[in-house]
Amino acid sequence: MATDSSPRRRRAASGPVKSDQPRAPYITRKLGTFNVLGEEGLSLTEHNADQILKETGMDFVGDPEILAIFRAAGCDVKGDRVRFEPGFCRRTITATAPRDYVQHARNPANTVKIGGDGTVLCPSWGPPFVHDLDRGRRYASYEDFKTLVKLHHTIPWLHHSGGVVCEPVDLPANKRHLDMLYAHIRYSDRAFMGAFIGEERAGHAIDMARILFGADFVANNQVLYCVSNTNAPLVLDANMSGALKTYARANQPVACTPWVLTGAMSPTTVAGTLAQVLAEATACLALVQLVRPGAPCLMGSFASTMSMQSGAPTFGTPEAGLMVLAAGQLARRLGLPFHTVGTLSSSKLPDAQSQQEATWGLLMSMFAGANLINHATGWLEGGLVTSFEKTIIDADLCGKVARFFDGIDLSENAQAMAAIAATGPGQHFLGSDHTRANFMSALFRPLTPDNNSFEQWSADGGRDAASRANTLWKKQLEAYEDPGLDPAIDEALHDYIARRKAEKPDMNYF
Amino acid sequence: MATDSSPRRRRAASGPVKSDQPRAPYITRKLGTFNVLGEEGLSLTEHNADQILKETGMDFVGDPEILAIFRAAGCDVKGDRVRFEPGFCRRTITATAPRDYVQHARNPANTVKIGGDGTVLCPSWGPPFVHDLDRGRRYASYEDFKTLVKLHHTIPWLHHSGGVVCEPVDLPANKRHLDMLYAHIRYSDRAFMGAFIGEERAGHAIDMARILFGADFVANNQVLYCVSNTNAPLVLDANMSGALKTYARANQPVACTPWVLTGAMSPTTVAGTLAQVLAEATACLALVQLVRPGAPCLMGSFASTMSMQSGAPTFGTPEAGLMVLAAGQLARRLGLPFHTVGTLSSSKLPDAQSQQEATWGLLMSMFAGANLINHATGWLEGGLVTSFEKTIIDADLCGKVARFFDGIDLSENAQAMAAIAATGPGQHFLGSDHTRANFMSALFRPLTPDNNSFEQWSADGGRDAASRANTLWKKQLEAYEDPGLDPAIDEALHDYIARRKAEKPDMNYF
Repeated sequence: MATDSSPRRRRAASGPVKSDQPRAPYITRKLGTFNVLGEEGLSLTEHNADQILKETGMDFVGDPEILAIFRAAGCDVKGDRVRFEPGFCRRTITATAPRDYVQHARNPANTVKIGGDGTVLCPSWGPPFVHDLDRGRRYASYEDFKTLVKLHHTIPWLHHSGGVVCEPVDLPANKRHLDMLYAHIRYSDRAFMGAFIGEERAGHAIDMARILFGADFVANNQVLYCVSNTNAPLVLDANMSGALKTYARANQPVACTPWVLTGAMSPTTVAGTLAQVLAEATACLALVQLVRPGAPCLMGSFASTMSMQSGAPTFGTPEAGLMVLAAGQLARRLGLPFHTVGTLSSSKLPDAQSQQEATWGLLMSMFAGANLINHATGWLEGGLVTSFEKTIIDADLCGKVARFFDGIDLSENAQAMAAIAATGPGQHFLGSDHTRANFMSALFRPLTPDNNSFEQWSADGGRDAASRANTLWKKQLEAYEDPGLDPAIDEALHDYIARRKAEKPDMNYF
Repeated sequence: MATDSSPRRRRAASGPVKSDQPRAPYITRKLGTFNVLGEEGLSLTEHNADQILKETGMDFVGDPEILAIFRAAGCDVKGDRVRFEPGFCRRTITATAPRDYVQHARNPANTVKIGGDGTVLCPSWGPPFVHDLDRGRRYASYEDFKTLVKLHHTIPWLHHSGGVVCEPVDLPANKRHLDMLYAHIRYSDRAFMGAFIGEERAGHAIDMARILFGADFVANNQVLYCVSNTNAPLVLDANMSGALKTYARANQPVACTPWVLTGAMSPTTVAGTLAQVLAEATACLALVQLVRPGAPCLMGSFASTMSMQSGAPTFGTPEAGLMVLAAGQLARRLGLPFHTVGTLSSSKLPDAQSQQEATWGLLMSMFAGANLINHATGWLEGGLVTSFEKTIIDADLCGKVARFFDGIDLSENAQAMAAIAATGPGQHFLGSDHTRANFMSALFRPLTPDNNSFEQWSADGGRDAASRANTLWKKQLEAYEDPGLDPAIDEALHDYIARRKAEKPDMNYF
C-alpha cells in the first residue's frame, strides 16, 4: 500500500510513527463530496458573480500591465477598475485551464497530484509567532522555521512542505523568502510553495527551482505553488498580481483565493459572500489564463466569519462550513482543482476550542473535495501563531481523514464471515485469528490520544493532550532524517542567495 | 423562526444564551446525507447479515417468552439460539414498523419528531462519575443528576432530557430509576427516556408516564424512548429483552442498538462489523414487531473501535465514522429511523483530544442522517464520566450542527447584491446597512470560544476553553427556570414512587 518505498523514509517512519501505517504521497479520495447547494443555488451564485463583475467590477491596483492585459482582451477598463461581460471570465478559464496537474517534489515518491480525487495537506502558512508549552508564545525565528520544516517532514500525513510555515522575523523582511525557500529545499524532499508577494520574490523562487530541478524541467513541469489572495472586496493589489503573472508565465500554478471574513470583507450572509468569492476568483483565474493560456490554476476560497461583537475573525463556524462546501461545488463546475484551508482556530492554546474548530474545518474541507488544503496543521490565534503541540494534534486528524476517505474495504478478508461464524454468540474476538491477522492494518492509530483507564492515565502523570503533544513533537524531531542534498545544488543555491542578498540593503518591511 | 414561543422559555433564553438565536424543538435537516457504501456494499452487507442470522443465529438468554415468540413465528429455536431464514427479519420489520413517529413532551413545544429529516440531540447517558474543574472526578450523586437535568434544560441545542445523564450511585441501584425518572419529569419539560434495564423498571417508567400524560394518551402516543443494547456478538439478555417487550407492548419506541467495539465484540474490520451490527439489529427489530406489530422502533448502531495495544475503547476514529455512515444507509434501506451516538471521547479531561474526538463523532452522526443522537454532550472517559465543562463545549457543537444543517439561505436579502454594489471594491462591510440588519441572525454564536486578541485574552486571565466552560455552566444554571409541575401530578408521582420503593429492600446491585 505504501507508495513511497525509499529506504530512507522507511527508516524514518519506523520511529515514533509506526511503519505499519502506510503513507501515501497524497490522499486519493474514494468517497464522494458533500453538496450543500442544488442547481438553483449554484446557477444563482454564478449569475450573481457575473452581475458583480459586470456592474461593480474589480480593481487591479498598481500594476498597469494587468490593466493592459484586460484591455487587450476586450474588458472594460476605467482607471484601476475592470468590468467583465457576463460569462467572459468563465469562458476564458474553461477554454484553456487544465483540470488537474502534478506538482513534482525532488523526491519523486513525494510528487503530488493536484485535482480530481487527490487531496494534498500542507502545514500552517504565515504566522509571525510560534507557541510551545515550554517557551510560550514568541516571535518566530529562522531556527523555528527550520525546526518546523523538519517536524513536518516527519509527519506522514502531511504531503507538502508548504511555504511560510512561520514568519522568521529575525531575518530581514525583504530577503527572508530566500532563506525560507532554501530551508524547504534543503531539509525536506517534499513539494513546496513559492514566494507569494511580489514579482521579484516570485522570480527568485522560480530561479531557485531551476537550480534544483533544472531549467528545462521547470519550463515543462510544475514544481512550485502560489496562492494569490485578493484584498476583498474586489481588489487585487500589485504584490499579488506581480506574483500571479510571474508564476503563470513560468507555467507554475496559481491558486486564486479570495480571503474574506463575512461582515467585514464581504456581506455578512453566506449567499452574498459566495457570489463575491466566485466573482473575485474567476476574475483572477481569467487573468492567469490571459497571461498564459493553459497555465495551471486552482479556484481558491478562504472564507470565514467574524464576531460582530469584537471584530475578531472566527473559525470552525457553521457558516464557514457551508461556504467551503459550496465553493468546492463552484470549483468543480468551473472544471478546476479546489484550494482551501484546514484546521483554523482563533484559540490561543492547543485546547478544546482549538480542536473543535480545527476538526470542523478540516472535515468540511475534505467533504468539499478540496484538492489542496493549506493550514492543515498548527494554526492558532487566527493565523498569528504556529503551535508545535497543535501541529502534532492536527497531524492525527490529517491521518484520520486520509484513512476515512480511503472508504470501506469490502474484500472477503474484511467481511470476516468465517471469523463471525467461528467466534459465535457471546464469545469475544480478541483471540480470533482474524483479529490477530488484521488489527495492525485495520485501524488507524493516532499518536496523541490517551485511551487508557483513568488509573493508568493518572499513574502516567494525568496529562492533557497538549502536554502529551509537547513530548511527542520532540520525539518526532529526534526521528527526523536528513534527506540530504546534492552538494553541487547546495552550493549553487548558496551562491544564488548570496548574490540576491548583496543586491540591496536589508529592510524590515516588505 | 423560533417554534417555541412559551414566555417562560423566552425568558430563560434571554439569559446567558442569547434570545436572538432561535431554538427549534429538533433539527430539521435541509441538507442530505453522506454515503460511504454503494449498492454493491449495501447488498453485500445485507446478504452477510442474513447469512449470520441463518447459519450462526443469535442467543436470547434468560427469557423463555422471547424464544416462544420466535418459535411461534416459525424461526428455528434450539436452546437459547434462534436462527432466521434469509429475509425473514427484514420482511417482518418492513411489514409493520412505522417510518417515523412523534415523541411527546409534557410541554407540547418540545415534542420531537423521530425519523425522516428530523434529528434529536440528547445528553450523555450512563456515566457513574461526574467531572468538573472545581471538584475533579468523583462518583455521581442524585444531586449531580438533578443539576445535569437542569443544566441540559438551559441548553437550547439539546432537544431531549435523556435518561441516565449520570448514574446517581448514592441511591440504591434497584430503585434509583424511579428518582431519575422523577427528576426528568419534575425539572424539565422536554421529552425523556424510559428505564432500559429489565421488565420491572420499564413497567415503572410506563406507569409514571401514565401519571404524567394520562393512561389514554400513553396508550395511543409515544412518550418514552428505550435503547435496547445487544451483548455483542449476537446475544440479547433478559434485562434488555424484558425492557424491549415491555415498551413494545405499551406501543413505546425501542432503539435496537448493537453496541460493539471492533476487535473485541465484533471483527476488527469495518465490513465484518457492519454485517454483525445489521444482523443483531434486525433480529431485535423483528422481535419488536412480533411482540406488537406497528410498535415504533429505530435501527441503532453504537460501533466504535478499540486499541489493540491496551484493549481500551477508542472514539472519534476513521473506522467509527465509516461505520456510522454505513449504518445510517442500512437503516434508511430498512425504512426505519436511525439511532446512534455523538460526542464520544476516551479523554479524561475536556481537552484537545476530547474535542477532536467529539467533533468528529457528532459530525459523522449528523452526516449519517441520524434521527436521534444519544450522548451529544458531556461524555468523557469512554462513558465513565459526564463532564460539566464538556457539556457546555459540546453544546456549542450541537448549536453549530443545527445551524449548519439548516443549509444556505438563498433569499434576496441573503444574496446581498445591493450591499455588494453599494460597498464596492476596497471598502468594508462593517458599516453597511445590510451588515447591521443581518449580523445578529446571519451567524451562529457559540458560547465557549475566545476570539479576542492575545492581549485581550491575556488581560482576561489567559484561560483555556475548559476554564471558560467552568464559568459558563454555572452561569447557565443560574438562568435555569423551573418549568413547574401540576401539584396533583407531583403528588401522584411521589406516592407512586414511595409505594414502589416500599415493596422491596434497597439493593446496591442491579
